[in-house]
Amino acid sequence: VIEPLSSSNKYQVGPTSRQLPVGVFDSGLGGLTVVQQLFKQLPWESIIYFGDTARVPYGSKSVDTVRKYAIQIVRFLEARGVKLLVIACNTVSSVALEVVAEAAQVPVIGVIEPGALAAAAVTRNHKVGVIGTTATIRSGAYEKALQQLASHLIVLSTACPLFVPLVEEGWLDHPVTEQVAREYLQPVLQQGIDTLILGCTHYPLLKTILHKVAGNGLRIVDTAIETARQVKAHLGTLRLFSPQQSHPQHFFYVSDFPQKFEEVAARFLGEPLSNVTHISVENY
Amino acid sequence: VIEPLSSSNKYQVGPTSRQLPVGVFDSGLGGLTVVQQLFKQLPWESIIYFGDTARVPYGSKSVDTVRKYAIQIVRFLEARGVKLLVIACNTVSSVALEVVAEAAQVPVIGVIEPGALAAAAVTRNHKVGVIGTTATIRSGAYEKALQQLASHLIVLSTACPLFVPLVEEGWLDHPVTEQVAREYLQPVLQQGIDTLILGCTHYPLLKTILHKVAGNGLRIVDTAIETARQVKAHLGTLRLFSPQQSHPQHFFYVSDFPQKFEEVAARFLGEPLSNVTHISVENY
Repeated sequence: VIEPLSSSNKYQVGPTSRQLPVGVFDSGLGGLTVVQQLFKQLPWESIIYFGDTARVPYGSKSVDTVRKYAIQIVRFLEARGVKLLVIACNTVSSVALEVVAEAAQVPVIGVIEPGALAAAAVTRNHKVGVIGTTATIRSGAYEKALQQLASHLIVLSTACPLFVPLVEEGWLDHPVTEQVAREYLQPVLQQGIDTLILGCTHYPLLKTILHKVAGNGLRIVDTAIETARQVKAHLGTLRLFSPQQSHPQHFFYVSDFPQKFEEVAARFLGEPLSNVTHISVENY
Repeated sequence: VIEPLSSSNKYQVGPTSRQLPVGVFDSGLGGLTVVQQLFKQLPWESIIYFGDTARVPYGSKSVDTVRKYAIQIVRFLEARGVKLLVIACNTVSSVALEVVAEAAQVPVIGVIEPGALAAAAVTRNHKVGVIGTTATIRSGAYEKALQQLASHLIVLSTACPLFVPLVEEGWLDHPVTEQVAREYLQPVLQQGIDTLILGCTHYPLLKTILHKVAGNGLRIVDTAIETARQVKAHLGTLRLFSPQQSHPQHFFYVSDFPQKFEEVAARFLGEPLSNVTHISVENY
């Protein structure tokens, strides 16, 4: 939902905006897989991250509740000052992207479209699988995005509600996780998909086990990587790259106690975190 | 935290109070196992239930956040009018019972003490196991309660964070759940416990699989049953039983969309539910 540049006078873009951080948010920890890719692909950009750890998970909540929470977070991040917003959460991207884009003063990128674009590009037999939380799958957001890109695609999707708790338990290479993955994936694999979209920001941590279950022939689309690519492309188009000589700053905010977040965050980010601040966004 | 009757002038008990419902709350669905037992043991009592489904789960949240949420719920239930409050949630009972009892105008019963009492009474070898969410186990609430009752008890506790998602997925009799149960229980079973407290209101639905893993010799303490017994005992002591000829009413409130709650609630309650109302308690 990036508006074309010609009609983008909604956005106040100038030399000052370039210095501002990219705002990234998620219902909890998962969005850190996107942050990790932003660090990698855009090392000069400052990042401000918000994880709604007090109200996680969103995946089992209603559309109205998720939208209300998302708008509160957007107001908080815009009050802090950002030049672009990344919804690093499949559930929010699925059910609230339009609402967030409407409310925001800056361009907004979700994770659905980048994932769908990559899948449509890599599939050879035009059968694409999608896995995600109950809310993401029920929304049909990936199906819609894929059909709009290439109406001949066959999309097979299935909800995997146990994957997030298994990742947060740290059972990344555990026989139980493998058995759960087999159970969840069997129906879509039987249909002969050659591409699988990881429609949840927690799932990149399960790549090894998913390859084990599905075979190395399956093309796995990591929406974290694809979303970071889109952020880079859009910052380029909008001429909003941070000056490369600048010293990037990384801010992390959570709505619950920071300590637990810091502990698990290292697993997602691949590096330790310590400067996490608690903030309540309920009244934004 | 029922105060002795002699000093209980804090509570305004009279004929009108007897007609009021018993207030029951939980972070989500789990408390319905307590409601089911209240229906069974106290068929004449009206019940008002609140499930904080928009902010579930509490088990991974900080003490401060859980306390804040609990107080909001108590204010809502007291505004609706209740004669006694049941914290049908192990996490809240573990970390917020004192705070809730302090804030409430009516007596408050949690699930920890009833479970500990029953376990201390049934164990023969004085080795008691406790399973629960990360927050409940980390709080040490059952250890404290058991040690106060009988200081010679050996208490072995372990967190089982995957049990709640497995129950909510409906995998009550699934090989994966059995494998997870084996993994979680093995260390405490190896220590020779003869009694196991189900320190989470979701766990009564796993009784069959837990017996399969642990053998039928293990005494399983169902805190839902024990809590309902305590409610009955206290209503008797406080002379707050509802008149038996009255027509009991059951009210269900949730903070998220009622539909999903109604679907899963049937599994917990053993009967269908339809009169569920949405309410936001954030501003109470």
